[in-house]
Amino acid sequence: MYGLTGKMIAQPGKRDELISYLLEGTDSMTDLEGCYLYVVATDPADPNGIWVTEVWRSQDDHQASLSLASTQALIAKARPIIVGFGERIENTPIGGKGIPKDATS
Amino acid sequence: MYGLTGKMIAQPGKRDELISYLLEGTDSMTDLEGCYLYVVATDPADPNGIWVTEVWRSQDDHQASLSLASTQALIAKARPIIVGFGERIENTPIGGKGIPKDATS
Repeated sequence: MYGLTGKMIAQPGKRDELISYLLEGTDSMTDLEGCYLYVVATDPADPNGIWVTEVWRSQDDHQASLSLASTQALIAKARPIIVGFGERIENTPIGGKGIPKDATS
Repeated sequence: MYGLTGKMIAQPGKRDELISYLLEGTDSMTDLEGCYLYVVATDPADPNGIWVTEVWRSQDDHQASLSLASTQALIAKARPIIVGFGERIENTPIGGKGIPKDATS
């Protein structure tokens, strides 16, 4: 499995709008069997900060999702209101609650 | 909802053992209705690094889990092989795939 937690910084006043685009995106993610988890959260310490936490079957599955027409459309809508990105944490999920068991990480 | 992503650093050579304790812990987490997600992952850039990603119904639910006898027993087993902790990211999940919809974040 492939896990990714990253921070996105919205233009001031645009965080709710950016979150709405990301949540729209999760509708198409829901049909992707390689997408196990996609959580959109606000940063309580940063009024412009958004954290996205993802778990994918593989890094290839994650990469493939970026090429979907729906994802490209979303990126086009979201890009103008993204100031930048913060931390980016990659990890290799082993197990736990809320994701499938994976013996081949 | 309450989200937490944190890094734990295992003693050299003890990461697999520490992960096994954390995964044991997720068995008792599974019965907790306030625990939505608990993912244990390795850090591909740090051979001693473990990332734990959690989503709880509330911060109180998270806090309460730390008082459980099973959690206390786990902490006692794990503490000797934990060198320290790294980043600690708190966030407020709004929605996405893999967690319940929450209109009251």
